[in-house]
Amino acid sequence: MAYGGDDVTAQLQQVVREVFEHPTARVFPVTSGTAANALALSATCPPWGSVLCHDTAHIMNSEGGATSMFGGGAVMRGVGGSGFRMDPDALQTTLDAVRWRDPHHSQPAALSFTQPSDFGTIYTCAQISGLTEVSRSAGLRAHLDGARFANALVALGCSPADMTWAAGIDVVSLGATKNGALSCEAIVSFDDRIAEELVYRTKRSGHVTSKMRFQSAQMIAYLTDDLWLRLAANSNERMAQLAAGLRDLEVAFVNEPDVNMAFVRVSDDVATALERDLWFYRIGTGVIRFVTSWQTTQADIDATLELFAAAL
Amino acid sequence: MAYGGDDVTAQLQQVVREVFEHPTARVFPVTSGTAANALALSATCPPWGSVLCHDTAHIMNSEGGATSMFGGGAVMRGVGGSGFRMDPDALQTTLDAVRWRDPHHSQPAALSFTQPSDFGTIYTCAQISGLTEVSRSAGLRAHLDGARFANALVALGCSPADMTWAAGIDVVSLGATKNGALSCEAIVSFDDRIAEELVYRTKRSGHVTSKMRFQSAQMIAYLTDDLWLRLAANSNERMAQLAAGLRDLEVAFVNEPDVNMAFVRVSDDVATALERDLWFYRIGTGVIRFVTSWQTTQADIDATLELFAAAL
Amino acid sequence: MAYGGDDVTAQLQQVVREVFEHPTARVFPVTSGTAANALALSATCPPWGSVLCHDTAHIMNSEGGATSMFGGGAVMRGVGGSGFRMDPDALQTTLDAVRWRDPHHSQPAALSFTQPSDFGTIYTCAQISGLTEVSRSAGLRAHLDGARFANALVALGCSPADMTWAAGIDVVSLGATKNGALSCEAIVSFDDRIAEELVYRTKRSGHVTSKMRFQSAQMIAYLTDDLWLRLAANSNERMAQLAAGLRDLEVAFVNEPDVNMAFVRVSDDVATALERDLWFYRIGTGVIRFVTSWQTTQADIDATLELFAAAL
Amino acid sequence: MAYGGDDVTAQLQQVVREVFEHPTARVFPVTSGTAANALALSATCPPWGSVLCHDTAHIMNSEGGATSMFGGGAVMRGVGGSGFRMDPDALQTTLDAVRWRDPHHSQPAALSFTQPSDFGTIYTCAQISGLTEVSRSAGLRAHLDGARFANALVALGCSPADMTWAAGIDVVSLGATKNGALSCEAIVSFDDRIAEELVYRTKRSGHVTSKMRFQSAQMIAYLTDDLWLRLAANSNERMAQLAAGLRDLEVAFVNEPDVNMAFVRVSDDVATALERDLWFYRIGTGVIRFVTSWQTTQADIDATLELFAAAL
Repeated sequence: MAYGGDDVTAQLQQVVREVFEHPTARVFPVTSGTAANALALSATCPPWGSVLCHDTAHIMNSEGGATSMFGGGAVMRGVGGSGFRMDPDALQTTLDAVRWRDPHHSQPAALSFTQPSDFGTIYTCAQISGLTEVSRSAGLRAHLDGARFANALVALGCSPADMTWAAGIDVVSLGATKNGALSCEAIVSFDDRIAEELVYRTKRSGHVTSKMRFQSAQMIAYLTDDLWLRLAANSNERMAQLAAGLRDLEVAFVNEPDVNMAFVRVSDDVATALERDLWFYRIGTGVIRFVTSWQTTQADIDATLELFAAAL
Repeated sequence: MAYGGDDVTAQLQQVVREVFEHPTARVFPVTSGTAANALALSATCPPWGSVLCHDTAHIMNSEGGATSMFGGGAVMRGVGGSGFRMDPDALQTTLDAVRWRDPHHSQPAALSFTQPSDFGTIYTCAQISGLTEVSRSAGLRAHLDGARFANALVALGCSPADMTWAAGIDVVSLGATKNGALSCEAIVSFDDRIAEELVYRTKRSGHVTSKMRFQSAQMIAYLTDDLWLRLAANSNERMAQLAAGLRDLEVAFVNEPDVNMAFVRVSDDVATALERDLWFYRIGTGVIRFVTSWQTTQADIDATLELFAAAL
Repeated sequence: MAYGGDDVTAQLQQVVREVFEHPTARVFPVTSGTAANALALSATCPPWGSVLCHDTAHIMNSEGGATSMFGGGAVMRGVGGSGFRMDPDALQTTLDAVRWRDPHHSQPAALSFTQPSDFGTIYTCAQISGLTEVSRSAGLRAHLDGARFANALVALGCSPADMTWAAGIDVVSLGATKNGALSCEAIVSFDDRIAEELVYRTKRSGHVTSKMRFQSAQMIAYLTDDLWLRLAANSNERMAQLAAGLRDLEVAFVNEPDVNMAFVRVSDDVATALERDLWFYRIGTGVIRFVTSWQTTQADIDATLELFAAAL
Repeated sequence: MAYGGDDVTAQLQQVVREVFEHPTARVFPVTSGTAANALALSATCPPWGSVLCHDTAHIMNSEGGATSMFGGGAVMRGVGGSGFRMDPDALQTTLDAVRWRDPHHSQPAALSFTQPSDFGTIYTCAQISGLTEVSRSAGLRAHLDGARFANALVALGCSPADMTWAAGIDVVSLGATKNGALSCEAIVSFDDRIAEELVYRTKRSGHVTSKMRFQSAQMIAYLTDDLWLRLAANSNERMAQLAAGLRDLEVAFVNEPDVNMAFVRVSDDVATALERDLWFYRIGTGVIRFVTSWQTTQADIDATLELFAAAL
């Protein structure tokens, strides 16, 4: 059976319910994180609504306006906070300033977390709960962009349930591609109304593949026997080693590298020297980004630190 | 002839070309400022583009996401600057940070001025030119939201051409409703590509009324014999008198009241006392907004100042 | 108070409830019929839904795709039937062929009547009820495009309630412009969910005018003391006289001119001769359209018939 | 490099140019046929436009309105014709009836072929050329939905160029998934304006996967050494054998099985009997659909014919 009507996808449904300890969770495999985020939010926020997220959120800065397109003109609004995390007071201030039910003003309808943030920091479960308590009391539902979901989970040492529905999250973008899978992401919904819309929204946006079973099979393997956690643990640990080594070299960080991403401050000369042997992004002036993966080895880290020592 | 195919609308076309001193300007009467802004921008910015505007722009804060809806998911991005005006350096910084032609990032395509701003301040023609020079060199076209266009014109003492196409503006939302007319706004385009799209975009959004001739007739009268300027001059002058009187009373202003709007700081007690006899908006805590109109008389101002003196 | 927050619009709300004999009806004044139709349908049909209507429906053929734009990509599907009216059996066949809940297929969600049709024919109340019984049992809600609502009402001799909610209609586009008013149309909703959405949808599409009170005042006058019915009765009666005269001249009709529109078959020579003195539309080859109005007089009809007699 | 910035995708670009014998063709890998079709059309038809296609086109009937969603409200209009193919005269009649440049009427902007049709029939290259000559002279561009592109190519014995740009096609949905690949489809554009838009439209709809290289690698292998043609040839030949066998059994066909699909008329009893051992779709009453694939063997066909013989 094509288009997700197959047994493997049905089995994935069960696996997700077990892993997330939620009896009615629904899973929708898609092929990209942008699809997962924008479709999840389009089912959560009406066209006249707004999605609140941190000023640095991936959905606002790196998806070409996908949320507004799939959202029928819904807008995104930044909420400030240090550590690339929304601050509960800033959120409360934003919500207090809303003219509710006044159609001249986009009505906040969804809160979206980037977990981990695009700058490698994470919210604790308590921080997520704290924010969703504020937003929920104003009627918003909550979305978590988990392109690196497993990395956050491992760093927090909590369960998938703890970090999502138990902390007030209604719908999750569950990424596997960055942690080893092939074009394999999924939307996990804990809210029946969201799930009902996603049945239609995924298809008409071309995100229901005919051979979905191959995505579902990957996702089952990924979620089974803690494979996802072991892969994420490797990337987090390698980053911890890299960060420790860089600190020994007195390199400064833009972020706390909570997971597998570090943003470090280096001079242009150092960056240029490193570029001969390493692959990384330059983020504006004087900052470069390192990301470790499920494949990164101890030897990779050692070699990187040696190159760093030489370049400094 | 219905739907703008009439002689009066044809005559308006000529009047607009004369008043704006532009031989190929095109005019599209619509019935609201939100329609004028969002439709003009939808013809200027592609769905994957972004509209840059001041953080306090009306289009971003008070139109319920209309620009994103009509724009097919185009987003709006705030540019900072004092006096409720975009700052050229802030604009340049924003443009320098863009990853051009990278589809992960909304591509800036339009710069939108709110002239006067929602806080009663105006850009000089030189300020408009300075900003459009920056934006034009990055390929953006420019829109001016002129819900109170005539008030700005009178305050600047310049011609419609000076404040628009001669300063780099491609398309204007020309408001008449706030200055005496009835559901009478218009889009004025100096760019043929924008105008071509507006033929279709206005109709399919329900903004081509069958009896357009009654809007066109109003707009012709409005633009003839300086009626629009005389009406705006009255409201600006009354506000100048009110502001002078309030300064004598040592009332503080949030803005420079360049046109017919003042935002003044008063205690809650004073605001409550004034509300018995006056009608105004409270803007957050400790600020109230006064707007004078084409109908406001010297006696109205005197009475207001007396009430103020009593309340303080 | 601007934007419909005024007393006149509040009074219109009451008038509409009385005229439609519905205690919770909600009215939304807009400035065009296209706006009324497309906004009403966007609040009735989800983006993944389809609107069923007659193959000749105005919404499908003459609004530039407005329903699909405001509907976020909702599609329109034609249902056949003679007399420019949907046929219950054709509707049933269409609904029987739907693969319900299969997201590959647009899900019918709304049935839209053009009453009168663009070809001057009307549904009886029983015909409307018969069709909505079919559609309602499949879960569709029903919309009535009443650009010439009063003309149909007068022709049927029924009450507004009879022709709408009592016959299964959930939301109406109530036109007044074609029957004497100025840019004055309204959406009347009998369904709270539709009304709730319209609060936001009307504003963000630029269809909430700041001086709405002038539309509301017109609509109150229009609905009071049977003014709307008297105006419509005049146009219907004049058409009946014209049609009788044309039949005496052995002119053939495309339609039964139930209201104030006749589509008559004439040779090109006759059409050309008539065009010297009369204004009408040519509809394809060999058919011309006549419309009478609230202003048409007996003398107009006599003169038209004389011109016809001469041209034949 | 992620998101298509890799060497494999660059190589695919060259392969596509060679295979299609077009020096500036551009290829955009996506993961579903719906994405390919709707995105290609959204870059070809403006929001106020219409896409003309056969009444039975896949885009109109089986993609949940994707073309209207991505098209910003663009509509689809059916054109009749026998054999599930648009008829040139019907197309000309449709175009002649258009009120060009009248914004009340959706403006035809694209012609879309389903090749092969959803009912297993194909257009010859001359038929495609004949239709695009008609549409091109009215200013339309042309799209070909080639979910089973290779099957049509093999059946026609022509080159990819013959069936596309040389026959007036501007943009193609090139399917590989149904012919053996995994979530591997592509848009191939011969028009620079379409390609420029697709850079942004693919990303913001979530159809630019980060590991695009795995799709590109599949597509390169698919297009190399005639693999795609050999796979398609197998499915076409198996269907020819099946069809010959069924004709011997005096089974009637709805279609000419030009490629690998047959729609055959059987009684309900026969269908029920066959369902015990075979997997197929029932299409309405009395018709079942058989599809052969790149994997189907001679033995499969023999077995199927035996089951048929037994069931009849």
